[in-house]
Amino acid sequence: MKDVFVAGVGMTHFGKFLSRSLKDLGRQAVTETLRDAGVDVAALDAAYVGNAVGGLITGQEMIRGQVILSPLGISGIPIFNVENACASASSAFHLAWSAVASGQHDLVLALGVEKLATQDRQATFEAIGTAIDVEARAEIEDLHGRTGQNRSIFMDIYADLTRAFMARSGVSREDFAGVVVKARQNAAGNEHAQYRQPTTIDEVLDSREVVWPLTLHMCAPIGDGAAAAIVASRDGLDRAGVLATRPRVQVRASVVRSGTSTTGGEPGSARAAIRDAYEAAGLGPMDLNLAEIHDATAPAELMAYEHLGLAAAEDTPALLWEGVTGIDGEHPVNPSGGLLCRGHPIGATGLAQICELSWQLRGRAGRRQVDHPRIGLTQNGGGWMGHDSAAMSVHILERSSG
Amino acid sequence: MKDVFVAGVGMTHFGKFLSRSLKDLGRQAVTETLRDAGVDVAALDAAYVGNAVGGLITGQEMIRGQVILSPLGISGIPIFNVENACASASSAFHLAWSAVASGQHDLVLALGVEKLATQDRQATFEAIGTAIDVEARAEIEDLHGRTGQNRSIFMDIYADLTRAFMARSGVSREDFAGVVVKARQNAAGNEHAQYRQPTTIDEVLDSREVVWPLTLHMCAPIGDGAAAAIVASRDGLDRAGVLATRPRVQVRASVVRSGTSTTGGEPGSARAAIRDAYEAAGLGPMDLNLAEIHDATAPAELMAYEHLGLAAAEDTPALLWEGVTGIDGEHPVNPSGGLLCRGHPIGATGLAQICELSWQLRGRAGRRQVDHPRIGLTQNGGGWMGHDSAAMSVHILERSSG
Repeated sequence: MKDVFVAGVGMTHFGKFLSRSLKDLGRQAVTETLRDAGVDVAALDAAYVGNAVGGLITGQEMIRGQVILSPLGISGIPIFNVENACASASSAFHLAWSAVASGQHDLVLALGVEKLATQDRQATFEAIGTAIDVEARAEIEDLHGRTGQNRSIFMDIYADLTRAFMARSGVSREDFAGVVVKARQNAAGNEHAQYRQPTTIDEVLDSREVVWPLTLHMCAPIGDGAAAAIVASRDGLDRAGVLATRPRVQVRASVVRSGTSTTGGEPGSARAAIRDAYEAAGLGPMDLNLAEIHDATAPAELMAYEHLGLAAAEDTPALLWEGVTGIDGEHPVNPSGGLLCRGHPIGATGLAQICELSWQLRGRAGRRQVDHPRIGLTQNGGGWMGHDSAAMSVHILERSSG
Repeated sequence: MKDVFVAGVGMTHFGKFLSRSLKDLGRQAVTETLRDAGVDVAALDAAYVGNAVGGLITGQEMIRGQVILSPLGISGIPIFNVENACASASSAFHLAWSAVASGQHDLVLALGVEKLATQDRQATFEAIGTAIDVEARAEIEDLHGRTGQNRSIFMDIYADLTRAFMARSGVSREDFAGVVVKARQNAAGNEHAQYRQPTTIDEVLDSREVVWPLTLHMCAPIGDGAAAAIVASRDGLDRAGVLATRPRVQVRASVVRSGTSTTGGEPGSARAAIRDAYEAAGLGPMDLNLAEIHDATAPAELMAYEHLGLAAAEDTPALLWEGVTGIDGEHPVNPSGGLLCRGHPIGATGLAQICELSWQLRGRAGRRQVDHPRIGLTQNGGGWMGHDSAAMSVHILERSSG
């Protein structure tokens, strides 16, 4: 397998943009990414486009990538449309990595794009709800104790997982609120983020209850956005002229797996994907200089500390409160503000994480810059099979000297 | 790049099965494929699942592959959901090929599955119509002279392309009817085919006009079905125990590209993809012992003769009438009956073509067996960007002695 690099990244602001379309968002992210990489569209060998619910929200199925990219002059090359729910963008990035690692292509585009904000909030919840087996909806709702319909079913699933996590770890709602406070602090320095106002523990706890123990501010918002990356071999970097001009970002591990949904117990896909990524990169948790993890709700960040191997479940709050996972800590987590505050346009999130890692590793993250990071990890999950995620993706990126 | 083989194939019957679901169809094709390859689910490294309109027809978006495969015990591995309209299955097969060629995986599954037949025919036409830029629908309808709504827009597009082909080649409607007569003859020997009754030139010409010059029998039918393949490296073949027991089928070329939709004139993606595949395999048209091509309407078969380099446009009918492209001819085309008669469950078709080639190359095609073929080609197109296909895929397979 060849060495693979991220030659450039770009993303739109994330937020609720009623007047912006899937096309508009996708094209902006691609244009900024091409500019960042210094690559002309004519140099691209292939494109991998992740999107989750565009078919239901916009009516455009099957060829969303072509429809978005063609007016930019990106045509005549292989274009693949990839769906894996909230892990659609990281799945697209993985396929891009795979094509370059194999020597098949030298310079390819990965795009994640999503449009969730419309006048019809309930339709958006229902669209997101198609990331489960829709024929088993009643069964999955029962399994996770769903009691209301005015929210995505994923809030019930996360709440159920959170209750189990609290029971075995002793972690509290105040700890989850602490995650949100940190995320807002971080997002304040991120111009692409959806929620950038500071908040307090009390404000988070006092916000509307979505499903106990989750309050509204503990849940990632509905939003729109797009993020992209140019993935390149060494030859591709040379072709793009990236080599000489700045720190290189190398992909050290790219893992996608589905959960083992037929077994019960605690979901294991995040642990397994992280383990596989560590093994592929020859690294462990103590090597992480930063991580962007899938905090669709605040408790997921503490769970991730455990899955990453940073702490036992009961010790995860200490990492937060002692600042270990703050921007200035030893293992910063979600310096971008994460899904909670950068926002979660579901099919774009995985590539927004890649953008953040790339900027951080290149020292281009501005007010939220982590001090000289060398190794970063992303974790991005999607869909739910009743006992585990449908897709779980982990990437490890490194600022490379070679 | 490593050598890549088709270790086994399987498909459902194609047809209108009102009582069968996407899951049911997909699982049958996978089960038969695993049996054909002699592979246990536990041996699979990854799965690539092509489907086009399942989200609109069944309400299941984003994780269709996981939902279909998980109850078979296929979980814990990477699963990717791939959409490329009528080329979804060949796109999934290409990604499977790419993962094995790269050395990333040794034994992977490619599945194409589609459910089109429901009580609501108009809804199916509308779903298929999302394989264009839905925001440019009026413009594309105008461009191709669409006059009615009781059919898929693709019939208007094909009719328009056909009129242009007739004008420059002198090919007639009788020639197109001849393609259908041949397809029915071939399909009579294919138990998986949807239409197996013999027909006549007059019957084809006298069937209801869909859009001039196309009659109903010149158009591939709405239908349901699934087809799959196990794609393997040499190590994967060893693991599966396929090596010793039968002729090996090797993938000599795997090409996917989008059309160059921003330019006018005749669509060039089929020619370009075929040229690239010939170049990758070091072969030319005279090497083809058979081809399975994308005859969504009958004229497409004659156009394909030209694109394949078998004849100039005006000479294509002679190939048909002189039997050159019949099962016993020098270059048999669509011995399966093609899309016209095997049927066209759109996201399954590309892998049904791979099934047919594999069976033919292994000498397992029964009454429709071509005499000892060594080289076969598939061509599968999907979606429409106004002037060219959104996705065009060509594969070359060889019965391998090495």
